[in-house]
Amino acid sequence: MTQHTDFSTTPSAAASDAGDMTVLGRQARQAARLMRIASGQAKAAALRAMARRLQEQKEQLKAVNAQDLAQARANRLEPAMLDRLTLSDKTIASMAAGLLQIADMPDPIGSLSATTIRPNGMRVAQMRVPLGVIGIIYESRPNVTIDAAALCLKSGNATILRGGSEALQSNIALGAIVQHGLADAGLPAHAVQVVGTTDRAAVGQLITLTEYIDVIVPRGGKGLIARLAAEAKVPLIKHLDGNCHVYLDAAADLDKAHDIAVNAKTYRYGVCGAMETLLVHAGIAALILPRLARTLADKGVELRGCERTRAIVPQALAATEEDWRTEYLGPILAIRVVDSLDAAMDHIAAYSSEHTESIVTENLQAANRFQREVDSSSVYVNLPTCFADGFEYGLGAEIGISTNRLHARGPVGLDGLTTMKWVLAGDGQLRG
Amino acid sequence: MTQHTDFSTTPSAAASDAGDMTVLGRQARQAARLMRIASGQAKAAALRAMARRLQEQKEQLKAVNAQDLAQARANRLEPAMLDRLTLSDKTIASMAAGLLQIADMPDPIGSLSATTIRPNGMRVAQMRVPLGVIGIIYESRPNVTIDAAALCLKSGNATILRGGSEALQSNIALGAIVQHGLADAGLPAHAVQVVGTTDRAAVGQLITLTEYIDVIVPRGGKGLIARLAAEAKVPLIKHLDGNCHVYLDAAADLDKAHDIAVNAKTYRYGVCGAMETLLVHAGIAALILPRLARTLADKGVELRGCERTRAIVPQALAATEEDWRTEYLGPILAIRVVDSLDAAMDHIAAYSSEHTESIVTENLQAANRFQREVDSSSVYVNLPTCFADGFEYGLGAEIGISTNRLHARGPVGLDGLTTMKWVLAGDGQLRG
Repeated sequence: MTQHTDFSTTPSAAASDAGDMTVLGRQARQAARLMRIASGQAKAAALRAMARRLQEQKEQLKAVNAQDLAQARANRLEPAMLDRLTLSDKTIASMAAGLLQIADMPDPIGSLSATTIRPNGMRVAQMRVPLGVIGIIYESRPNVTIDAAALCLKSGNATILRGGSEALQSNIALGAIVQHGLADAGLPAHAVQVVGTTDRAAVGQLITLTEYIDVIVPRGGKGLIARLAAEAKVPLIKHLDGNCHVYLDAAADLDKAHDIAVNAKTYRYGVCGAMETLLVHAGIAALILPRLARTLADKGVELRGCERTRAIVPQALAATEEDWRTEYLGPILAIRVVDSLDAAMDHIAAYSSEHTESIVTENLQAANRFQREVDSSSVYVNLPTCFADGFEYGLGAEIGISTNRLHARGPVGLDGLTTMKWVLAGDGQLRG
Repeated sequence: MTQHTDFSTTPSAAASDAGDMTVLGRQARQAARLMRIASGQAKAAALRAMARRLQEQKEQLKAVNAQDLAQARANRLEPAMLDRLTLSDKTIASMAAGLLQIADMPDPIGSLSATTIRPNGMRVAQMRVPLGVIGIIYESRPNVTIDAAALCLKSGNATILRGGSEALQSNIALGAIVQHGLADAGLPAHAVQVVGTTDRAAVGQLITLTEYIDVIVPRGGKGLIARLAAEAKVPLIKHLDGNCHVYLDAAADLDKAHDIAVNAKTYRYGVCGAMETLLVHAGIAALILPRLARTLADKGVELRGCERTRAIVPQALAATEEDWRTEYLGPILAIRVVDSLDAAMDHIAAYSSEHTESIVTENLQAANRFQREVDSSSVYVNLPTCFADGFEYGLGAEIGISTNRLHARGPVGLDGLTTMKWVLAGDGQLRG
């Protein structure tokens, strides 16, 4: 097909209903009923149609994106933000590839599990079904529009997308491509709607629309998410902070310990899985810290240590209580020397945000105890915390990393966007 | 062991900290850290010790319960309420049997699932872990104190129990037995705490204590739960209403249809799985309704029908729009004649509370469509809706029936009181 979307004459439903989230909500609820029973084939066809349309219309997309970028420059947005806002041939190709990858994943919907036959002969099973209507609230990266739409669609949900105001025109254009892709496959266009307003009141409305929205996935800074959590009536799958720890055990292999600690801190400073505090067993502190401090200093990482750390690494600044609590998301590392595995786990229990922690050890018992007893959403042995990512876990895709305890914990893939209903079949069995 | 609990001289921790839920919360959080790693053996031993203590101390328990009953009679509680409040030899034996049954169930904690090896050689799995601290808010049945404590304990959680004010003394006595049972097995007594006050402010405090409580399971009337949901900051696993439907399809076996409909309505009027509206395909309405109406009339059930129903069953009252929305929880049944499976599913989509629905049919395609397309937490084929119960599903026990979509949907057994954390093991793999 070479049909092109004409952004100027095909107003998206979103843009025309910009002001009233209840209209979007009602449309989403209606679409959800159809999406729930859409075949895996139709959903894959829609995703492939979107990928094709993205590539076909990349020049138009870039032109729309240029308007957002011009406005953002006029508003003196920081270069890093401008970079995230930009749709290039490369980012468009990457979005299209992501769509094809999700299209090829198995359909999670309708599978039965835990099937049992009860003594009275009735069959009990659980069927994986969509959550219903998912709201996504995110910041200025327009590629999230495509990623989030694709994951929610694949898992049989309807979606309402509320992106950053800087990306509004880009998101509306991407939303039109998504809606045309849905229509190509015979699926309801309202299964994905982009909120066509930058009015902040829309967010306040979305998070309280319990009648039409089943769950909200906020993607953004800790401040935004904490504020949404305080006001939301709709359940959130929320991603708060990642104050992640690596503990170098007495029985650590020193080379692995060095490389894992460096990777955990420096793979990317800004990711939630970045190590923020390093705990080192007193028995190996003098053996590992000088070398580690040199490597990290070479990479420009500022060290803040406890007194025992500073006795070994004099150039480290003095760490305060506040340092143990801080998610730096930057080139700073807090270091504390501890006397035992238990002391390390006590520190983690006291200060961790329960995101991701790792132990480096060759001792099986220490590894098992750490993995069993540390109460974080991900607990590693001999791996850097920066592996905290749905793709790395083999989920194929990720809508975010949940710091909730209920429903989905840690990286959230397609299964996290679904729930289970009970299906029972009998032949007239009665109760009592 | 023949050691007896002396209620008069061993004040429970709960009673002494009656006023401040944060004290209970902090104690629960500390206990939860120990409970998380308690062995299955220790947890089973605690449950068995509780069962033994219940039987040993049944005379003392009945004496304490008599005080609650005397107060309740003075307050002119209804006979049905008094009945639910009473601890008899039989109810105590039943509680003890329940404890032993839960003791014998497999420990859900620590099991690994979905283990995969990633291309880089690291192992990814999910480990079942407790939720943490669970608050239970319930009404005046003291047996819930034992059931809920046992389920939360078995699943490795700490629990704060807030029962009805009428049962306060009974609940404190049962709480002491539970705490002594925990101590017998070397587990922290604060793993189960009974709130020792009838102050309503305690509930308001519990549902907002996000620092110390991970989830609240409210068990009670729809009004109570809706109010808690409006004010809660702690996530709720909530059980709202059960407006359940049975649809008698054109291809229904008429005998099965009759028996299933009668059982669904009359097994017990007050259970959430009771049928409230019967949908009947027009093609069999004249064949099934007269006989069904006679049986239900004999059992004292009032019928309220649509016009087409009343043309066949003249004694039925006229149903109003309000009837389709109502969970009677009593001997009343709404009946509507529909023209198709789709019309039945449209009615259910419009009026159901998404609890439990059933189709009676011998047609495979109708059964499959109904089970796939109806969006309720339980969807049956050829079974009465009154099977909605964790024991009937083979869960072994049930903390409630969730009308949430996230986390746990439908009957909630031990697994619903747990969550999954990710455990990754490597040998120094690095990222990027």
